[in-house]
Amino acid sequence: MATEKKHKLKIIPLGGLGEIGKNMTVIEYGTNIIVVDCGMSFPEDEMLGIDIVIPDITYLIKNQDKIKGICLTHGHEDHIGSIPYLLKKINVPLYGTKLTLGLVENKLLEHKIEDAQLNRVEAGQTINLGCFKVTFIRSNHSIPDAVSFAIDTPIGMIVHTGDFKIDYTPINEEVMDLGKLAECGRKGVLLAMSDSTNVERAGFTESEKTIGYKFLDIFKTCESRIIVASFASNVHRLQQIINAAVANNRKVAISGKSMINAVKVSQELGYLDAPEGTLIHINDLKDYKDSEVVLMTTGSQGEPMSALTRMANSDHKKIQIKQGDLVIISANPIPGNEKTVSRVINMLYEKGATVLYDALTQVHVSGHARREELKLMLSLLKPKFFIPVHGEYRHLMQHAKLAEEMGIPEKNTIIGKNGDVIELTSKSIAINGSVQSGNILVDGLGVGDVGNIVLRDRKLLAENGLIIVVLVTERGSGKIISGPEIVSRGFIYVRENIDLIEESKSVIRKALSKCEDTKIKDWNNIKMMIKDALSSFIYEKIKRNPMILPIIMEVKPDDMSSICDLLKEELEV
Amino acid sequence: MATEKKHKLKIIPLGGLGEIGKNMTVIEYGTNIIVVDCGMSFPEDEMLGIDIVIPDITYLIKNQDKIKGICLTHGHEDHIGSIPYLLKKINVPLYGTKLTLGLVENKLLEHKIEDAQLNRVEAGQTINLGCFKVTFIRSNHSIPDAVSFAIDTPIGMIVHTGDFKIDYTPINEEVMDLGKLAECGRKGVLLAMSDSTNVERAGFTESEKTIGYKFLDIFKTCESRIIVASFASNVHRLQQIINAAVANNRKVAISGKSMINAVKVSQELGYLDAPEGTLIHINDLKDYKDSEVVLMTTGSQGEPMSALTRMANSDHKKIQIKQGDLVIISANPIPGNEKTVSRVINMLYEKGATVLYDALTQVHVSGHARREELKLMLSLLKPKFFIPVHGEYRHLMQHAKLAEEMGIPEKNTIIGKNGDVIELTSKSIAINGSVQSGNILVDGLGVGDVGNIVLRDRKLLAENGLIIVVLVTERGSGKIISGPEIVSRGFIYVRENIDLIEESKSVIRKALSKCEDTKIKDWNNIKMMIKDALSSFIYEKIKRNPMILPIIMEVKPDDMSSICDLLKEELEV
Repeated sequence: MATEKKHKLKIIPLGGLGEIGKNMTVIEYGTNIIVVDCGMSFPEDEMLGIDIVIPDITYLIKNQDKIKGICLTHGHEDHIGSIPYLLKKINVPLYGTKLTLGLVENKLLEHKIEDAQLNRVEAGQTINLGCFKVTFIRSNHSIPDAVSFAIDTPIGMIVHTGDFKIDYTPINEEVMDLGKLAECGRKGVLLAMSDSTNVERAGFTESEKTIGYKFLDIFKTCESRIIVASFASNVHRLQQIINAAVANNRKVAISGKSMINAVKVSQELGYLDAPEGTLIHINDLKDYKDSEVVLMTTGSQGEPMSALTRMANSDHKKIQIKQGDLVIISANPIPGNEKTVSRVINMLYEKGATVLYDALTQVHVSGHARREELKLMLSLLKPKFFIPVHGEYRHLMQHAKLAEEMGIPEKNTIIGKNGDVIELTSKSIAINGSVQSGNILVDGLGVGDVGNIVLRDRKLLAENGLIIVVLVTERGSGKIISGPEIVSRGFIYVRENIDLIEESKSVIRKALSKCEDTKIKDWNNIKMMIKDALSSFIYEKIKRNPMILPIIMEVKPDDMSSICDLLKEELEV
Repeated sequence: MATEKKHKLKIIPLGGLGEIGKNMTVIEYGTNIIVVDCGMSFPEDEMLGIDIVIPDITYLIKNQDKIKGICLTHGHEDHIGSIPYLLKKINVPLYGTKLTLGLVENKLLEHKIEDAQLNRVEAGQTINLGCFKVTFIRSNHSIPDAVSFAIDTPIGMIVHTGDFKIDYTPINEEVMDLGKLAECGRKGVLLAMSDSTNVERAGFTESEKTIGYKFLDIFKTCESRIIVASFASNVHRLQQIINAAVANNRKVAISGKSMINAVKVSQELGYLDAPEGTLIHINDLKDYKDSEVVLMTTGSQGEPMSALTRMANSDHKKIQIKQGDLVIISANPIPGNEKTVSRVINMLYEKGATVLYDALTQVHVSGHARREELKLMLSLLKPKFFIPVHGEYRHLMQHAKLAEEMGIPEKNTIIGKNGDVIELTSKSIAINGSVQSGNILVDGLGVGDVGNIVLRDRKLLAENGLIIVVLVTERGSGKIISGPEIVSRGFIYVRENIDLIEESKSVIRKALSKCEDTKIKDWNNIKMMIKDALSSFIYEKIKRNPMILPIIMEVKPDDMSSICDLLKEELEV
């Protein structure tokens, strides 16, 4: 009988499946909800003009009374980036480790959010959230203070790895708590959710320390100024740059807003250790010889506005790249950034710098587990059910195959989509329906006000430009008393293509007289006729498809205000 | 004395330096010019709406009387793609090997060019072009019939490698003619120009044959339908797919226009050998079991319109991807295509296909020489002077360093830019001035009519969309008798943002009354006032910068035609 009363456990991914980014997973049992992570992602190429993408949290807003808290695995944007947007809708408690919360606080300041409920949890601690017990388990990643979660639920234990790699020689000597994970495995793990990012890469990801040794080698033999670009949040990498600098009697200056923030926060919280006097202000670089300084900077992805890109472009206020500078790009291009990074490398070379990047020598290691580490994780946890997370479909697919090789039957693994409701009992796992989910686009301060129609228009405008056709007709007769005139943007140089413009006008006139002959009086139809006639003419002439926007104005000498009505109609199109 | 009469030899790269693509090099001595290759390149991301990019050939048009001919190294687009555009301006003779000319003929048909002067040359042959003797030297590349050039000039020998790799076991048993290159080296090479594409990769590029063995392994154990995507022009790859199919009793069908063309041409010219009955029409696939067929297709770069992408999207007319299909992507993403390729892989997996690509197992080898091969080339040629070609600056730079390691003094190597005039004597090499060069953008049928202003507008429209402000004023008084009305595209949903639109209108009205107060009557100034007021309002409201396009119409009841003049002014903006 009791068993009938039991609820099913629901796993509802709102982000992070079928994509790299905006990680967010809902875990629900009866009237209890906890959420793992609250990330953002960067726009796809076709999301023109969009700044960031956040998950659709409609389901959480509807069920906000059930939410006991949001547990954060670590402080990367794809795990905490949506927090300000979520808190503006529902103010729920957040749980995370010290550095993670430190980075969250920075975000909240930017968004002027003051009433957030931040609860610090130490790795190793267990917290009670409704019917759930969440244990924070130390893990390793490309940012300190990352954790995995062991979640006790009424029907069994769930382990969510978060982003992880297994680093036996991490910078802070805190190896992932494999013992705790093994203990979970012994007790019995009902469901494991594990990071799929690097599943396509064989072997083990190298230890962060290997890069430290590489820095020492490079710095030792270098007489010139050293500039190192890396991810601001990769505090261990920054620590190793500082260590190599100290070992070679170099001072360290910092460039780039996010890098300055990251250093500030991680120093305050004790995650970054720089001997007194090591860090200097960028303005003080001039007081030292080139062989006495290192500059840590943002821009490892070739972001157009970043410090390194400005240096390469010679429009950085403080730093000019000069002959002999050694620039180390200590990061790999995120898929899609290959060309921007390459462009920066080219510009640095052209200015006489020597540039080191992964194509030439290993100056970066990944923060994600490769196949052998993923196998180790699965063999420690021995889960009954498995949901690969954090990856495009190709990665989830490969990870599912890997799990099958490890003895987890295919039917026990779910390759889910964002929005799927994955129902779990002690004996079964299955997708049962779905909830509202998807991408909410943030453009400037606008959240969700740019949708598919707007994006479609942007794409059309981007590829072909715009032709505005303005003409004035006389009310009643419909006779053209002025125009058609043509204004274009992003199409061609009007001045250099007068003929095409003139021909276009006569095409429009033909279309209009056709309307007259066929007694078409409805403005939308007339506009349609103009559009069709002009676009097929233009396409035939030069094989292009500009957006065509007819604006028809009707006037009546003794009734000027009628123009206004006409324009109002315009807005209805 | 005679020496004073001697001209300097000029090397003028019009494309291919500081970029991957649109390779074109002018070699000039006195009244003699020959050109090596005539390629196109694909647009950069910021070249919105552009189809292809071709080199600026103004210099060749000015000097057309000097041109003795264009020598083609091989049939890839980045070496022959601009030929139709060039021939429409100047009809000069072309020299190339059989397959190269076959592919050129195809292009000329598409462009309806009939009077081209195509001259076939066999590898090993030497032709006289004015004061130059050009010897075609067999080389290896990812397309058959590729050659390098040894060019005897009045002041010494130049060797241009073209794109190459050194394949000791090529598919057609025709190894690069290393003996001939060594002979050049013994005679003395004044200047070498060598392919820099893969200079950042250590070791040797694997033989094309390794992929053949891989195909045999894969095909042997596969029971399902096999679909292989690769570059249409990689005829050796196609040959190996066919061989593996024949060895496993599979028929081969072809999908994708360029693939069908490539197979047709290379079969006719004897570069592709398929036993009678091996190739079947795609419509006949239904007559065979899945285990009896292979489909060769285009789309290895995830091109949106390509056959493979259509299959993955389920909008291919003939082929539906089904559970169990094996899809092999036998090509690497060209930088910039990583995401589109990844998307196709994801969609194929989602449809139940198994997908093999380089991240998982080696199903592709490059057509370009790596460092050890580049060293071999330099040590065979022992050139006095060196110009690294075919690469972005980073590649040219690395190649120059490599040459220095090989004993070529730094001062004897030139890292050039497109348009540089590189002057050569038997004793010296130096850049002396430059000629007009650059990117000509092709958009539809328009060649060069899309320039920076148009692209800047497209970018602005793409990122922020457009707001058109229309208002009608009374001549003389300047009083607004209608509007302002607002039409927007690619900005926000007007319907859902009525407030913003209304506020915008009042902002515009304020700006206008300010104009009245300050007696500003000039239309361009009034437009500027509207633009400034509205854009700063919008930015403050939602942090966006839409393009703002004010259209002011002035009317006078008894003088309708005045409207027309106003609109004409509009066009002057």
